[in-house]
Amino acid sequence: MTAQLYCFGESGNAYKAALTMQLSGYDWQPVYVDFFNGASRTPEFLALNEMGEAPVLVEGDLTLTQSCVIQLHVAERTGKFLGGDRNEVLRWLFWDAQKGSGQQGGLRFLMNFVPAEKRPGTAIDWLSMRVQTALGTLDRHLAGRDWMVGDAPSIADFACCGYLYYPEPFGFDRKARPNIDRWLENIAALPGWKHPYDLMPGHPSDRAAK
Amino acid sequence: MTAQLYCFGESGNAYKAALTMQLSGYDWQPVYVDFFNGASRTPEFLALNEMGEAPVLVEGDLTLTQSCVIQLHVAERTGKFLGGDRNEVLRWLFWDAQKGSGQQGGLRFLMNFVPAEKRPGTAIDWLSMRVQTALGTLDRHLAGRDWMVGDAPSIADFACCGYLYYPEPFGFDRKARPNIDRWLENIAALPGWKHPYDLMPGHPSDRAAK
Repeated sequence: MTAQLYCFGESGNAYKAALTMQLSGYDWQPVYVDFFNGASRTPEFLALNEMGEAPVLVEGDLTLTQSCVIQLHVAERTGKFLGGDRNEVLRWLFWDAQKGSGQQGGLRFLMNFVPAEKRPGTAIDWLSMRVQTALGTLDRHLAGRDWMVGDAPSIADFACCGYLYYPEPFGFDRKARPNIDRWLENIAALPGWKHPYDLMPGHPSDRAAK
Repeated sequence: MTAQLYCFGESGNAYKAALTMQLSGYDWQPVYVDFFNGASRTPEFLALNEMGEAPVLVEGDLTLTQSCVIQLHVAERTGKFLGGDRNEVLRWLFWDAQKGSGQQGGLRFLMNFVPAEKRPGTAIDWLSMRVQTALGTLDRHLAGRDWMVGDAPSIADFACCGYLYYPEPFGFDRKARPNIDRWLENIAALPGWKHPYDLMPGHPSDRAAK
């Protein structure tokens, strides 16, 4: 049975789930969520996920939401990328949900997908400060390490990189974070790796072209 | 062996862990983290938790960070409050980390613990909008339910209520969210329940008095 992942290319949270499935060789296909035209707030979508968020995984009778829950499910089903120490993997998944992808996604949205005249200045300043603090935590953790947990890639890596391959600027400078830069190269060298815009439908140019 | 929870009264994230231990009858004691005087950013604390955050649980050789990881550990050790459906419990823990406590804590901090003249106005507006959206999701989920998952209290309840008993205002009006209000009464009626300021050391008046 082919699993369906409700997602869109601009979502780093969806990418966390999609990348985990892609690198695991999971049988899945994307279902496009037209987020920028309000598709995640419709009654139909809220019936699928009351949280009004992508990604959502539908696999037969099973519906899962929250990117990290989908990552755990795929890792348990395939036996791949579970990482050695469950608590260590989980704490980075939770850290990413709040301090990593959780904040990067909001900041990138405000800085790129909100019209310039409507951007809330001090919100961007405040969130930028928090995003930089979290990038510092991530960079320090990766000093002398190839992977987030133990000696092999795991879903902790595919969580914490969720927003870090996107071209839209949100103050993340790879050159200024050498440990993150090296680690992103490691992930991108895994067999089957794809960039978010190559893995999921939906790209900023779709809207620019209209 | 008595577990030590590094925490402070003002932290709803620490409360999630402390409340889980309290209601489980866990053998624990609080260790005060003087967060407002920078104690979570010292080299000593960063050696304990590189994320620079409370809570931290130390139990013999085991050190755990991230409130939800501590909650899971305590629930697994005691067999209490695990909830029935693991994926359903986990998705609310992740939702809370990003959209619930994760945002409420930041907003409450900006509105109460930052001097009025330094408060970033549009950051508060932006975060308020997001906190209200998340409170709406929580309130709708609790319509017709006594507990977050299934028919019994679980760590999903003790996560999602993390910041909701505090008196400091951040736009959460219990009367305007009747399902949340009723659910908070349910949690507070559990044997052994305590308010965060009664469960952990540290209170805003400690600083006001100086």
